[in-house]
Amino acid sequence: MLNQANIAARMAAIQPFHVMAILARARQLQEQGRDIFHLEVGEPDFPTPQPIIEAGLQALQNGQTRYTPACGIPALRASIAQYYQERFGIKVDPKRIIVTPGASGALQLVLSVLLNPQDEVLIPDPAYPCNRHFVRLFEANPISIPAYAATNYQLTVADIEQYWTDKTKMVMLATPSNPTGTTLNPTELKALHNVVKARNGVLLVDEIYQGLVYEGEEHSALALGEDVWVINSFSKYFGMTGWRLGWIVAPEWAVEALERLAQNVFLCPSTPAQYAALAAFTPDARAIMEANKQILKARRDYLLPALRELGFVINSQPAGAFYIYADASHFTQDAQELCLQLLEQTGVALTPGIDFGEFEANTKIRFAYTTGIERLEKAVTLLKNYLPRS
Amino acid sequence: MLNQANIAARMAAIQPFHVMAILARARQLQEQGRDIFHLEVGEPDFPTPQPIIEAGLQALQNGQTRYTPACGIPALRASIAQYYQERFGIKVDPKRIIVTPGASGALQLVLSVLLNPQDEVLIPDPAYPCNRHFVRLFEANPISIPAYAATNYQLTVADIEQYWTDKTKMVMLATPSNPTGTTLNPTELKALHNVVKARNGVLLVDEIYQGLVYEGEEHSALALGEDVWVINSFSKYFGMTGWRLGWIVAPEWAVEALERLAQNVFLCPSTPAQYAALAAFTPDARAIMEANKQILKARRDYLLPALRELGFVINSQPAGAFYIYADASHFTQDAQELCLQLLEQTGVALTPGIDFGEFEANTKIRFAYTTGIERLEKAVTLLKNYLPRS
Repeated sequence: MLNQANIAARMAAIQPFHVMAILARARQLQEQGRDIFHLEVGEPDFPTPQPIIEAGLQALQNGQTRYTPACGIPALRASIAQYYQERFGIKVDPKRIIVTPGASGALQLVLSVLLNPQDEVLIPDPAYPCNRHFVRLFEANPISIPAYAATNYQLTVADIEQYWTDKTKMVMLATPSNPTGTTLNPTELKALHNVVKARNGVLLVDEIYQGLVYEGEEHSALALGEDVWVINSFSKYFGMTGWRLGWIVAPEWAVEALERLAQNVFLCPSTPAQYAALAAFTPDARAIMEANKQILKARRDYLLPALRELGFVINSQPAGAFYIYADASHFTQDAQELCLQLLEQTGVALTPGIDFGEFEANTKIRFAYTTGIERLEKAVTLLKNYLPRS
Repeated sequence: MLNQANIAARMAAIQPFHVMAILARARQLQEQGRDIFHLEVGEPDFPTPQPIIEAGLQALQNGQTRYTPACGIPALRASIAQYYQERFGIKVDPKRIIVTPGASGALQLVLSVLLNPQDEVLIPDPAYPCNRHFVRLFEANPISIPAYAATNYQLTVADIEQYWTDKTKMVMLATPSNPTGTTLNPTELKALHNVVKARNGVLLVDEIYQGLVYEGEEHSALALGEDVWVINSFSKYFGMTGWRLGWIVAPEWAVEALERLAQNVFLCPSTPAQYAALAAFTPDARAIMEANKQILKARRDYLLPALRELGFVINSQPAGAFYIYADASHFTQDAQELCLQLLEQTGVALTPGIDFGEFEANTKIRFAYTTGIERLEKAVTLLKNYLPRS
């Protein structure tokens, strides 16, 4: 008889999201009539901007529901290229842009085209957990490098020098980062690029939260040169989470392989989503996104000092995305337990650090400001009344 | 400097679709004003049924564009379960149904959860090419077994007995099959299931073309027991190609692992597509699908004897899907060259056998009856005038 013993070995390394236990309990409590404050969800409370919805409706009415080219419709690849030109002054050949089913699809394509079994990929700890799981999916090894608040939980040149081996193939960075909300500035990025380039490695930069940066000039790692790999998404800044649409910008030498794999593993990205996304670059849609960004900034500007006042330690600079990664060691050595307790006692749902890595994860909590400021204020008050005075 | 030499080894085994060369040339000719007959495309000319479109419009208007549970919205999983009950009299727990981004996503999840590197998967040759590419993606080995027209290009019990080794983990079958359009009847399926089960292997049945069977009773491999794995799709019978939505039915012991992986690699299937698909099981939508099926049957009933009259040999029984896999050895020992020539000289676009395997592929051609019967008639006339008399 077949049973769980027949599951592939790689699955042992692919953990569930621990926040799911929080979510399940939150749902139970809500069903019992409890008011739950969702500071655990990585999805803002904004709807998809109306111009994108309208374009989606139009696409369905026009019967745009058939297969498209595997790398996406040419008009969308051209629009993304134009976006880089207009926003960042970077010239990208549309051929180098591969539209994918979400940034998840992008990550999958990049890693399966580049990684051989046993290759090593350097990743900061904490990081988006799926990154290391995707690496493992293709029998390669994610190497988690402890990352510190003092360096914004980002990798440093010294880290790469220290952890690089002859098996290292790639370094994955994220700016802004999930779960930390921190960014890399152009100078830091350039130094990291140089050290990877000198070792003939691949630099992959996750720019999924690009556009949601509240301090400093916006930039893209693509400015560093055509050898840099970037993944991006329509989910966050563009507000299209459930549509599942993202993209890769790859060096020209890899495009043929990426296209070949996309044909085989996806056939194509969602057709209605692609046509809807054409409207994501219109001035009307952009105005909505920029307004949403200001709302997120206001939430961050409220929440960051409020959490510090509660006794959470935040020595990094959460300049982007919609996350604050806080040290809760003042309160606990078991942040998952504290998260469950806070949910139970205050109705505030949070994500424990262990969802993002292992390094000092038991004292970390991610706060997502994906809900309105009035709700954030109430949540902070509830936490304040429950937590011991700092 | 990085270059193509840095592409992962697995990519050498993942071939492009050779039909893409045909498609590219067809497009060129069309741009020059030539009338091209598309008998190469695996996508019928029917639009998505209007009730599904309406449900999609409603979903967008209701803001159903956010993340859903990783395995799909409960209502859709329940609808699929009910479909098995009503159509096939098979009871399936909705928990065992995992909604995926297309059947491509389904295949990926199943194989990554089950296959260890070097595991062997028995697959008929010819078969849908992505099957063996997906197996290779996870460092396992697809074992292509020559399949013959006399046994409908399906595997036999003797094949499995012969090719089974201690590395064999799984057998993949498809009914109806792409590219052959052939089916397995319940007796054949049961015998194949028994031989796999006796070896403690996994039986995975591709039922992507389920619903498009023009001879005999419809059935599902799920009738054989809860140990059988099935993948299915909203693309073909349900007419939702570009929406990218499919599903898995898995044994209960594997559901937790599948869900965990789905969370990590997909987050969720397309939300608008899921809400639209709820309408796929309504009587109005089903009536349209059944009418489309009758149209496809009429096309097959025309094309099959017509091709035989032209001199193509079809000794299998293409009872389903929308494909006829024909032996062209009367005309050529290089079917890809013949396909290019036919396109050039007659404007009829076809898919060469090498897109589906290696066994006798150089004398095989796939005809897709995804275009109207008048166009099929014209195409046959053009072929008749060009090809030597049989």
